[in-house]
Amino acid sequence: MDLSRCRIAIHGGAGVIDRASLDGEREAAFRAALEGIASRAWLALKQGASALDVVEQAVRELEDFPLFNAGRGAVLNADGVVELDASIMDGRSRAAGAVAAARTPTHPVTLARAVMERTEHVLLVGEGADRLAEALKLERSPPDYFVTAERAAQQKLAARLGKVTLDHDPLYNGPDPKDPRGTVGAVARDAWGHLAAATSTGGMTNKHPGRAGDTPVIGAGTWAEDATCAVSATGHGEFFIRSALAHDVHARMRYGGASLAQACAGALARVGELGGDGGLIAIGHEGEVALPYNSEGMYRAWVDGDGVLRVAIYAEVAEHAL
Amino acid sequence: MDLSRCRIAIHGGAGVIDRASLDGEREAAFRAALEGIASRAWLALKQGASALDVVEQAVRELEDFPLFNAGRGAVLNADGVVELDASIMDGRSRAAGAVAAARTPTHPVTLARAVMERTEHVLLVGEGADRLAEALKLERSPPDYFVTAERAAQQKLAARLGKVTLDHDPLYNGPDPKDPRGTVGAVARDAWGHLAAATSTGGMTNKHPGRAGDTPVIGAGTWAEDATCAVSATGHGEFFIRSALAHDVHARMRYGGASLAQACAGALARVGELGGDGGLIAIGHEGEVALPYNSEGMYRAWVDGDGVLRVAIYAEVAEHAL
Repeated sequence: MDLSRCRIAIHGGAGVIDRASLDGEREAAFRAALEGIASRAWLALKQGASALDVVEQAVRELEDFPLFNAGRGAVLNADGVVELDASIMDGRSRAAGAVAAARTPTHPVTLARAVMERTEHVLLVGEGADRLAEALKLERSPPDYFVTAERAAQQKLAARLGKVTLDHDPLYNGPDPKDPRGTVGAVARDAWGHLAAATSTGGMTNKHPGRAGDTPVIGAGTWAEDATCAVSATGHGEFFIRSALAHDVHARMRYGGASLAQACAGALARVGELGGDGGLIAIGHEGEVALPYNSEGMYRAWVDGDGVLRVAIYAEVAEHAL
Repeated sequence: MDLSRCRIAIHGGAGVIDRASLDGEREAAFRAALEGIASRAWLALKQGASALDVVEQAVRELEDFPLFNAGRGAVLNADGVVELDASIMDGRSRAAGAVAAARTPTHPVTLARAVMERTEHVLLVGEGADRLAEALKLERSPPDYFVTAERAAQQKLAARLGKVTLDHDPLYNGPDPKDPRGTVGAVARDAWGHLAAATSTGGMTNKHPGRAGDTPVIGAGTWAEDATCAVSATGHGEFFIRSALAHDVHARMRYGGASLAQACAGALARVGELGGDGGLIAIGHEGEVALPYNSEGMYRAWVDGDGVLRVAIYAEVAEHAL
């Protein structure tokens, strides 16, 4: 056990975050949520918690925060209901679990972990995922719990226009800037040097029922492997799947000898070549931290080797002593 | 257009194929199916068909053949019904489409292609996938169409023993060797040098409803990219997901400078390290063909640069002039 190994990074989504649309009160709420969740995760790591436990807990808290697009406050599909995607991966063993298009788990990331640890499967989709949550007596919630007024209004607007949009689509940056945003995720390195990653999302507003993005696709939205890196992605999921983004970061380090920062930049460039935007958070096996994005901003917070908590939405970074 | 570029490889699954259990008549039926499907695919390539069209058509024919575990003859889940997974990827553009746990498409691979070409999504799961098939008026079939007597008997046996098994589990190699097998897939290189890959499966016998393996996971069961390779995998899907097998073959070539054969062997070794068995078929950007497996056998047929059709189940290869 070596507490100097601890690292944490979390995100609440990347995208075309129009600064003008984000009023001061709302921005402060986002920043406070990121700061609180990251600092609690850091404390847990310093108390010896495993990277796996810490990323699950951080994502649970991000799912509970109603302004992010995951768990409560997730966007609505074309039927006007949430369909939740999540995944988790343990860098020690490459064990992984994921769910796609689940409608009832209060904490989709915990259901993903249950798939990993309590079944012989990796990925459960649709009603089958909800049935597992029920069988294991995991916390479930009725449809109303997940739906916020803002998300319902967004889906109605998208449906009227016949569009499927990203959660942060400029469409929603109207004069009333009630525009919740963002897939969420966490990556961590614990005092034993183990890595883990987890991601959770409601996907795209007004999406076709059953549509899954990169979040439940191990290798696209999430990867963790102690020898190289832990990665959680956010953005236009289809392009991330077609780039196998998270595994591509691993592969550039493992086979190409790239640094974590080089690997993240190269992998994200592959998404950009296809026309996709978004970002990712990553921690390397030597404790490096990278949080690149090719959109206007990304909600993020992290603690690096210097023990300083950093919180940012755009390029400017706020520092907080811990 | 250069007809010397054409290559085709197809598979009907890999696994513990007990030779003693495969009687002569059944083995002849498998070989005839592989030979017919591969030779028709080859003819289409020689007539200028695209790799994408050819892999879709080959997989449709493999789905129709009731002894393979895909489309008609797919294994049954714990509810006693089929849930079908499929994916397709176009090496020209890295466009991709996939479906998981669909219950009605007569040809799941064609539904995957419709997701790729007729929606803005890559992956549709569960009932949402069936709804797309209905909306696009793709061919659908009632539950009875898919279920064969052998698969129903296998699921009942697995359920009685409380097991989730591979389609080729030795459990089914009883004195009456009616043991249909295998995920199916195809990879091709056309006269323009473009690559494509497609895969289709019913997954594991007595699986939890909603369980998806590597087949619908782009980067695990399927990958195609003109710069490197086209890959279709078969085996114990959970281990293939945790290895991002298909993208790993690409990455070893792209970043590590491996040959196709080296990349396939290295990627399959990663699956083996986790305890997984199976195989893959792959065509490289220079026309190389590789068909490795770490199980006792793999149903496969291919045409290499010499224009000879080869068909094999175990190590011995039968050659047919075309």
